[in-house]
Amino acid sequence: MAKTAGIVLIGNEILSGKIVDQNAVYLCREFRQLGVDVRKISVVPDEVDLIAREVAEFSGAYDWVFTSGGVGPTHDDVTIEGVARAFGRRVVRDPGLALSLEQVYQGRLNEARLKMAEVPEGAELLASDHLIVPVVVVGNVHVFPGVPEIFRRKFDAIKERFRERPYLLRMVFFRVGEGTLAEHINATLRSFPELLCGSYPEFTNPEYKVRVTLESKEPGYLEGALQDLLARLPADAIVRVQ
Amino acid sequence: MAKTAGIVLIGNEILSGKIVDQNAVYLCREFRQLGVDVRKISVVPDEVDLIAREVAEFSGAYDWVFTSGGVGPTHDDVTIEGVARAFGRRVVRDPGLALSLEQVYQGRLNEARLKMAEVPEGAELLASDHLIVPVVVVGNVHVFPGVPEIFRRKFDAIKERFRERPYLLRMVFFRVGEGTLAEHINATLRSFPELLCGSYPEFTNPEYKVRVTLESKEPGYLEGALQDLLARLPADAIVRVQ
Repeated sequence: MAKTAGIVLIGNEILSGKIVDQNAVYLCREFRQLGVDVRKISVVPDEVDLIAREVAEFSGAYDWVFTSGGVGPTHDDVTIEGVARAFGRRVVRDPGLALSLEQVYQGRLNEARLKMAEVPEGAELLASDHLIVPVVVVGNVHVFPGVPEIFRRKFDAIKERFRERPYLLRMVFFRVGEGTLAEHINATLRSFPELLCGSYPEFTNPEYKVRVTLESKEPGYLEGALQDLLARLPADAIVRVQ
Repeated sequence: MAKTAGIVLIGNEILSGKIVDQNAVYLCREFRQLGVDVRKISVVPDEVDLIAREVAEFSGAYDWVFTSGGVGPTHDDVTIEGVARAFGRRVVRDPGLALSLEQVYQGRLNEARLKMAEVPEGAELLASDHLIVPVVVVGNVHVFPGVPEIFRRKFDAIKERFRERPYLLRMVFFRVGEGTLAEHINATLRSFPELLCGSYPEFTNPEYKVRVTLESKEPGYLEGALQDLLARLPADAIVRVQ
């Protein structure tokens, strides 16, 4: 079984359409390459109770949980409080984190900025040579900021911890539509029930009508499924295999 | 109280990073303009039980629910079954929908394509002059396809049903950082507790350091809050007000 991950995005700015999330998109691609199965993404408002409920549910359901957003010095930054409540813990100021922030702000570390040194009691700090401010971890929950540049820098610094056996991907591009393909894909899936198979129609693409993706962690199984599907269709239905 | 909406995106292709969602982004912007409050977005896999659980929860929690994806002729299109299970209903073939599909496929309507005429028993069909195939609605749940062009065409055809009193937005761009602004924003929020206020730092923008958004449905309240915040800061901290 692949390890699973869940992503909780925190931010009214996403729900009100002011900002387009880039972090879940980034994590989904990264985890696929790492061989980890992202099972769910949620976007919730900047409200402590809603964050707490979502984080608690995700923490119980998936191997790893990642939050994005809601960490900072302002009134709408309530993720730490939400994560603390999810685990029934108090919020405390972490001396190590305060020290890291002092390095960043060099004497301009006021009370508002010191809010960023607050963590749920007992939180672990994941440090790395590539990071000035470490990643806050509580149980299986990893807390990341929403700013995409910082999010990526922090995730990249710790991502090797999550590497699993990768998914292998083959793609077939078809000249015929989904209505024609469906029965053949279904037949292949009956023979290869463990195959992960997606079917993505294009309505304005001149090159092909449907892209079918086949995935597995087992090279032999994947190749068998691919050959099974290809054999079910006439050669002229296939644009290319990749 | 503003009406609330929840969005459920269905698709392994989003979770595995193959496709970047455009539909929730579109809906969030549209709903903001319509004056509707989007309270949550979830992305779940193409699995009947998970879709059913999510749709049932959203249906109870929000005024309106919108699903995107998982409707089509192939094995991974299980949204209708999931929505039916959420409401404890059977899946049946709708004669009106079958007729609409016949218009689209003109004699090429095979069994796989007829799957797209299946609906939860008792579903309502929202027709419009601008649509060939109507929108399937069950209770407060509106089922949309994942293909962005079709999603938008269908939503635009029915969106006036959801119009409320709009949110009004003002924005202030600051030359000073969040660490300096936080206490002033907090003070304004103590005087204007109903204000919706967001604070969005920029780290590489040469023009400003923080964009603060102020929103309300009440013009007088919004203007009062804006003036309150502006009065707390020296004029040279402000780049512009919009």
